[in-house]
Amino acid sequence: MKHKNLIDLEYMTKDELEQTIRMAGVIKQRPDVYSHACEGKIMATLFYEPSTRTQMSFQTAMMRLGGKTIGFDNPMNSSVAKGENLKDTIAVVSGYADIIAMRHPTEGSAKAASLYSSVPLINCGDGGHFHPTQTLTDVVTLNFEKGRLDHLKIGLCGDLLNGRTVHSLIKTMSHYEGNSFVLISTKELTVPDYIKEILEKSHCEYEEVNNLKDAIADLDVLYMTRIQRERFPSEEEYEKQKGVFVLDMDKLKLAKKDMIILHPLPRVDEIAIEVDDDPRACYFKQAEYGMYGRMALIVLLLRAEGSFVFELPDPIVSVQHKCSNPKCITNDPQQFYLPKNFYKKNDRVFCDYCDYEIN
Amino acid sequence: MKHKNLIDLEYMTKDELEQTIRMAGVIKQRPDVYSHACEGKIMATLFYEPSTRTQMSFQTAMMRLGGKTIGFDNPMNSSVAKGENLKDTIAVVSGYADIIAMRHPTEGSAKAASLYSSVPLINCGDGGHFHPTQTLTDVVTLNFEKGRLDHLKIGLCGDLLNGRTVHSLIKTMSHYEGNSFVLISTKELTVPDYIKEILEKSHCEYEEVNNLKDAIADLDVLYMTRIQRERFPSEEEYEKQKGVFVLDMDKLKLAKKDMIILHPLPRVDEIAIEVDDDPRACYFKQAEYGMYGRMALIVLLLRAEGSFVFELPDPIVSVQHKCSNPKCITNDPQQFYLPKNFYKKNDRVFCDYCDYEIN
Amino acid sequence: MKHKNLIDLEYMTKDELEQTIRMAGVIKQRPDVYSHACEGKIMATLFYEPSTRTQMSFQTAMMRLGGKTIGFDNPMNSSVAKGENLKDTIAVVSGYADIIAMRHPTEGSAKAASLYSSVPLINCGDGGHFHPTQTLTDVVTLNFEKGRLDHLKIGLCGDLLNGRTVHSLIKTMSHYEGNSFVLISTKELTVPDYIKEILEKSHCEYEEVNNLKDAIADLDVLYMTRIQRERFPSEEEYEKQKGVFVLDMDKLKLAKKDMIILHPLPRVDEIAIEVDDDPRACYFKQAEYGMYGRMALIVLLLRAEGSFVFELPDPIVSVQHKCSNPKCITNDPQQFYLPKNFYKKNDRVFCDYCDYEIN
Repeated sequence: MKHKNLIDLEYMTKDELEQTIRMAGVIKQRPDVYSHACEGKIMATLFYEPSTRTQMSFQTAMMRLGGKTIGFDNPMNSSVAKGENLKDTIAVVSGYADIIAMRHPTEGSAKAASLYSSVPLINCGDGGHFHPTQTLTDVVTLNFEKGRLDHLKIGLCGDLLNGRTVHSLIKTMSHYEGNSFVLISTKELTVPDYIKEILEKSHCEYEEVNNLKDAIADLDVLYMTRIQRERFPSEEEYEKQKGVFVLDMDKLKLAKKDMIILHPLPRVDEIAIEVDDDPRACYFKQAEYGMYGRMALIVLLLRAEGSFVFELPDPIVSVQHKCSNPKCITNDPQQFYLPKNFYKKNDRVFCDYCDYEIN
Repeated sequence: MKHKNLIDLEYMTKDELEQTIRMAGVIKQRPDVYSHACEGKIMATLFYEPSTRTQMSFQTAMMRLGGKTIGFDNPMNSSVAKGENLKDTIAVVSGYADIIAMRHPTEGSAKAASLYSSVPLINCGDGGHFHPTQTLTDVVTLNFEKGRLDHLKIGLCGDLLNGRTVHSLIKTMSHYEGNSFVLISTKELTVPDYIKEILEKSHCEYEEVNNLKDAIADLDVLYMTRIQRERFPSEEEYEKQKGVFVLDMDKLKLAKKDMIILHPLPRVDEIAIEVDDDPRACYFKQAEYGMYGRMALIVLLLRAEGSFVFELPDPIVSVQHKCSNPKCITNDPQQFYLPKNFYKKNDRVFCDYCDYEIN
Repeated sequence: MKHKNLIDLEYMTKDELEQTIRMAGVIKQRPDVYSHACEGKIMATLFYEPSTRTQMSFQTAMMRLGGKTIGFDNPMNSSVAKGENLKDTIAVVSGYADIIAMRHPTEGSAKAASLYSSVPLINCGDGGHFHPTQTLTDVVTLNFEKGRLDHLKIGLCGDLLNGRTVHSLIKTMSHYEGNSFVLISTKELTVPDYIKEILEKSHCEYEEVNNLKDAIADLDVLYMTRIQRERFPSEEEYEKQKGVFVLDMDKLKLAKKDMIILHPLPRVDEIAIEVDDDPRACYFKQAEYGMYGRMALIVLLLRAEGSFVFELPDPIVSVQHKCSNPKCITNDPQQFYLPKNFYKKNDRVFCDYCDYEIN
């Protein structure tokens, strides 16, 4: 059985991703053609943890397609969220809505919800696990602004250890020929090993550096991320180092004229306000482009034909195994009913919900 | 003066109820015919206490008719709810909206609000008093799934003392010929005497039993409800008895092949998850059918013609009487301005707002 | 550079205001003509402090024009409001929406936001500073109910010191010929001196009195406002005086047959409930008329042609000056990036955001 859900961008084929990006471009150019594409359709935005920006982006996307939205944004205030298991809420809501966009603080919750939804479901973030429409936003922006997804030198700067958007972008861009990566962070906040494995396996060049100024000159793309004070070993370390990872006009002077600056937003102070007026600053446009990416995704998921079907790995059911990730939805006692699904890859076993490796 | 409001299902004639049920069926079969029925109309969903499921059901119903919605769901956050009397809020909102769906924690508040609304008002629950669209949902489901509202053997299981949906369903179904009832509960949680009076007056057969397993074999319909731990005399009593009122596959094996299982939702654990996959489990469909019932109700209330007019008892104004129900809206000092309305039935006097008998 | 924003009604020319009022009248009479005027357009209602009534009025206005709305009403719950500066939020949201309606607790925030919005922005209240659509509501109501904006004797009763709606209404009405004002308040709560200066400069007659009963007979308009207990020098003073400023049927008997009563709502107890049924009570209609005023404003702001352009004073940039109003947005450290804008009027210097005079 194949689901028309978007749990992670990795479950899209390259063709499907490119189809989505192409359609985002068409919608941007001719919004009028799509302004009734979802007329009479309803999207439920179920935000078990608030994320106003993401929720507004989805609501706007649906509305600009002629559709309507219901939903909630405040788990504390929601009787649905309180005391009812995920299965029942999804079963009921998929009787109301034509498509569901869900954000949930627990890892693997998107996959779990998709099992019980009779309508397409989009993962808008399941804890620290996946957030595929952010990465879609990023690649749509690259395509709009650079005109290609290959042969780009991409700098990623900030907290590369904990940022799921960074990992997801690297994974996606590693599928395209000729891309190389400059990973700019403190040595405590470098990318995890599994990301380096992916880069090596796909023969992408990459280097790890600890200074933005030295790295900026050759970049086609600079992807900035928040660097959180509490991630540094000490307050002194933070004060000493933080300037090295802040983009200001002094550093930007050294960059190429056609480099573009991306940021998933919200920013704290890693990009100086003065940079906003530079034509290379693309992060506000990026938010708008994300809306076009989401519009394309909604249209493709709602299309009746089977031409756009994400391939998910076939799970194996195993009652012997138990996911060892304490943040996984299968370890929430209220969701005890979830089937014990795992999958095998290279002789290793992973949780089918949160993709954690089982020992 | 006649109001086009839905305060309780009892104020509908049998004809009006059947018209509503019939229209729900038509909408379910041909949603396209009604997809513009409320175009240009606005529904205000005023939820003075949160009930995400009910609010989403009304919003969806209005949207699927081509209408739009405004409203609030968070009294603490709402300046309307804070410090303003109900009359003023209703007077203002009925200047904005074409129809109001209101939920309020105080008994009698729906009737009170209807006095000041210049547009139709639907009661979405006024404290423990009425919740007519839940009962409408139930009868629409019975009609869809059993094809009739008469000659049904209906089991009701769980807390029959405190469940207003149970009482309302019994009242409504007692108007139809040949229905009989099996009331399944602990002896502490049997239906109140006034419900038994209604059953006797309408010559409905009923029996009271305390074990689901023994009762299930003959039922056409099994209506399950939550049974709350705190309703039991002691924790030991709860642990000892609760299994007797939980529907699982073992008990379901004994039931008829075409019995249907209803539940107002949310469930806690009174229906085992394994039952969900049985074709007799109708509670998720029931939630969807409730949407069609609400759509029919909205269409009929918004129709300009007078063909659909609920008959309310004519109140008498009396300054001598005072409602003795402490939960009644007339005992909220902020609503001091409400007219002192009561009505007489069989020489007994009742509060016109909360239907409490005045001594 | 000219902005199509509504920061304050004072920035509209008399022509623009009259155009708006005229269009409100046309929309009221022929709502069908405008029911698709904003089809395909989205309004963001960004309410950094809750004001359910104002937000519902804007949402309804947009919906009745065929448009749709996104937004938030709960700053505590909103990740946009938390931790992100105003500039970034506005930059992102103006990429989603076609028009923004913003309420914010900080003075000058509307002007600040308008600097970064790529779409028209309407101020729905910026702290105690401006609330132009309330005043628009008031003048639209005067025009609908009295048929004119000139030669009116207008009584204003209650807290005239702190009520920004009172000040704004006086300023606006002072531009029309033959209006006179009766200012009815305790001596502690009289209008500030700068309002008297405006009245004198525009040669409007006015008198200050401290008793509603003595003043009511000659009025064409009575504008009631809340009078807050804590504004009185003592509890005894409050108890002694409050009745003098409460409108009841006894006082209303003395008024002209065609006087109209306005109130910005919500009321507490300054108008007795019995007054609601008098035909002179216009405050509920006023709320509805406000919706027409807002509809007209939205249509005019969204029109592509430049015929409706508010003139703002040209600011001067000065790094020497600093706004001395502690409630001004320029004194919020998170908004450090705001340009140091001031303007000169009669050789005095004012903050361009909150209009506070700089010493």
